Amino acid sequence: MSTQTVSAQSTSAQSGSLERLALNRWTFRTTPLQEFLEATVSRGIGSVGLWRQDIEEVGLEALRRRVDDAGLRVSSLCRGGFLTASAEADRAAALDDNRRAIDETAGLGAPTLVMVVGGVDRADKDIVGARARVTEAVAQLAPYAEERGVTLCLEPLHPMFAADRAVLSTLDQALDMAEAAGSPAAGVVVDTYHVWWDPYLERAIQRAADSGRLFGYQVCDWNLPLAAEPLHSRGYMGDGFIDFPSITRMIKDAGYTGDIEVEIFNEDVWATPAEESARIIAERYEQLVLPYA
Amino acid sequence: MSTQTVSAQSTSAQSGSLERLALNRWTFRTTPLQEFLEATVSRGIGSVGLWRQDIEEVGLEALRRRVDDAGLRVSSLCRGGFLTASAEADRAAALDDNRRAIDETAGLGAPTLVMVVGGVDRADKDIVGARARVTEAVAQLAPYAEERGVTLCLEPLHPMFAADRAVLSTLDQALDMAEAAGSPAAGVVVDTYHVWWDPYLERAIQRAADSGRLFGYQVCDWNLPLAAEPLHSRGYMGDGFIDFPSITRMIKDAGYTGDIEVEIFNEDVWATPAEESARIIAERYEQLVLPYA
Repeated sequence: MSTQTVSAQSTSAQSGSLERLALNRWTFRTTPLQEFLEATVSRGIGSVGLWRQDIEEVGLEALRRRVDDAGLRVSSLCRGGFLTASAEADRAAALDDNRRAIDETAGLGAPTLVMVVGGVDRADKDIVGARARVTEAVAQLAPYAEERGVTLCLEPLHPMFAADRAVLSTLDQALDMAEAAGSPAAGVVVDTYHVWWDPYLERAIQRAADSGRLFGYQVCDWNLPLAAEPLHSRGYMGDGFIDFPSITRMIKDAGYTGDIEVEIFNEDVWATPAEESARIIAERYEQLVLPYA
Repeated sequence: MSTQTVSAQSTSAQSGSLERLALNRWTFRTTPLQEFLEATVSRGIGSVGLWRQDIEEVGLEALRRRVDDAGLRVSSLCRGGFLTASAEADRAAALDDNRRAIDETAGLGAPTLVMVVGGVDRADKDIVGARARVTEAVAQLAPYAEERGVTLCLEPLHPMFAADRAVLSTLDQALDMAEAAGSPAAGVVVDTYHVWWDPYLERAIQRAADSGRLFGYQVCDWNLPLAAEPLHSRGYMGDGFIDFPSITRMIKDAGYTGDIEVEIFNEDVWATPAEESARIIAERYEQLVLPYA
C-alpha cells in the first residue's frame, strides 16, 4: 500500500459540483486506504465516510492526518450500535464500546456516528423488548455524544434485516427513539436502500428535519435479484428500482444541506478498479442526485 | 391423482381444537388436490385456503363440491391484485381479471379474496404513482365485491418485495387504501411473515379491527438465511424469528375470531409428505398460536 501523502492540489477542477458528495470507505473496501483517498480527491469529491476498521488499521491520529493532508472532510464514522443484548455484562460492554466509538468520531473531526442497533435474540424472539433496550441505551449515549460535539445517526435498516442486524426498521421508529433520548445529539440518517419503500417516507423526512435530527443522507440503489448476502444487493444509483430524484427532492425540501454519502456493498463494485468506480459514482450522482439536492 | 370423495366422517376427534386452523393450498403445492384435502380433514382441520390455479385445474363447481363433500370450509381465495400497471389497456385487463376473481371467491363460498397488488414499473420507478393507481383500482373493485358478499383482503407484503411484487408494504398503508375505497368490503390480512417487523404492528392491528377491516390472519415463520428466492423463506412456526404468542395475542385482543391460515412457501416443506407436514403444522399451531388465539 502506498503511504505517500495525497495532495489537495491534485483535485480536479470540477467547479465544486462534487463538494457535497461523500464516498463511503466500504464502497471501496477492497482498495488500499491511500488509493481510496487519492481516487476521492482526484475527482474533486468533498469527503469520505470512514469505518472503525480504518482506525484499527492505521491509528486515529495517522488517519486524521491523512484525511486532512488530502484536503478531505470526514462525513461520518461507521459504526456504533449493537445495543440489543439483554445480559447485563454484554450490555455494559456494548455501551463502553459505543463510548469509544463516540470518542473516535470526535477525534476524527467527523460530525456523526452511524449506529446499526442490532438484531433479535433468537433465544427470546422478543423484538419489542430488544427495541426497548435500544431506546434506553441511546438515551444513555446521547448526552455523552453531545458533550463531545458529535451526533448519533440512528440508521433504520431495511426490515429484511430486522431479525439479524437491526430491530430499527423505519425512520419514524428511529425518530421516536431519538426524541425519547431527550438530547439534540440523537438523530437519524436516511439511507435510500433501507427506506425507499416506506409509504410514509416524505412525512418522516420532514419530521426528522423539523426536529433538527436529520443528520445524514446515504444513497445507493436497490438491485434485484437479491444477492446471496442481501446486504450486498446495494447498487450504483440508477441500476435498480429507487427513484433518486423524488427522494432527493424530499431531502432538499426538508432543508437538508449536508453531505450525500454513497455507500455500496456489492461484489461487482468491489471487483472494479477504484478510479472507475469513483467515476461511475460521480456520473450517476450528477445525473440522478445533484440536480435535485 | 385420486378423485374419490373425502368423507367428513374421517375427521379425527381432536375436540375441535383445529377448527380455526386453515391450510393454505400453496403450503402443499406439490401434493395432489385430493390428497391435500384428505390430509386436512383427517387431522380435524377446519378449512383450506385455495388458489385460482385449483379452479383452473378442476373447475369451480367441482372444486366447491370436493370441499363441501369433505366437510371443509374455504378460508380464502388467492389471489387478486396486480393493479399497478399504468397503460390503460393493462389496467382494464387487470380490473376485469379481478372481477372474475371476486366472482370465483363468491362461487366457492369463500369469505375473502387475498390481493397482492403488484410491484414498481422499472421504466418509471414511480412507487408513489403505482400506489395511487392501486388505491384507485381498489376503490373501483370494492363495491363489486360488496355486492357479491365477499371482502377484499389487501395484503401488505414485506418491503423486500416492494420493487417486484407489492408496493403495499405496511398494514397502515393497506388501511389507508381500504378506507379510501369507501366500502366495508375493503380490508386487510395480517400475514406474520410480511409484517412481524413493523414497529407499529399492535396499533395497526387494532386499527384494522376497530374499522371492521381485519379479514384474515396468516401465520408462518421468518427463516434465515433467506432462500435464493426470498419468497420461499417462509417456515413452520417456531423455526425462525417470529414471536407468535405476542402477535397472536394482538390479533385476539383486537377481537379477531376468524380462521388462522398457515401459508408456507418453502422447498423443504414441499419435499415433505403432506401427512407429515400437516402433522408438524398442527403441532406448532397448538404450541405457538392456539393458546393465544
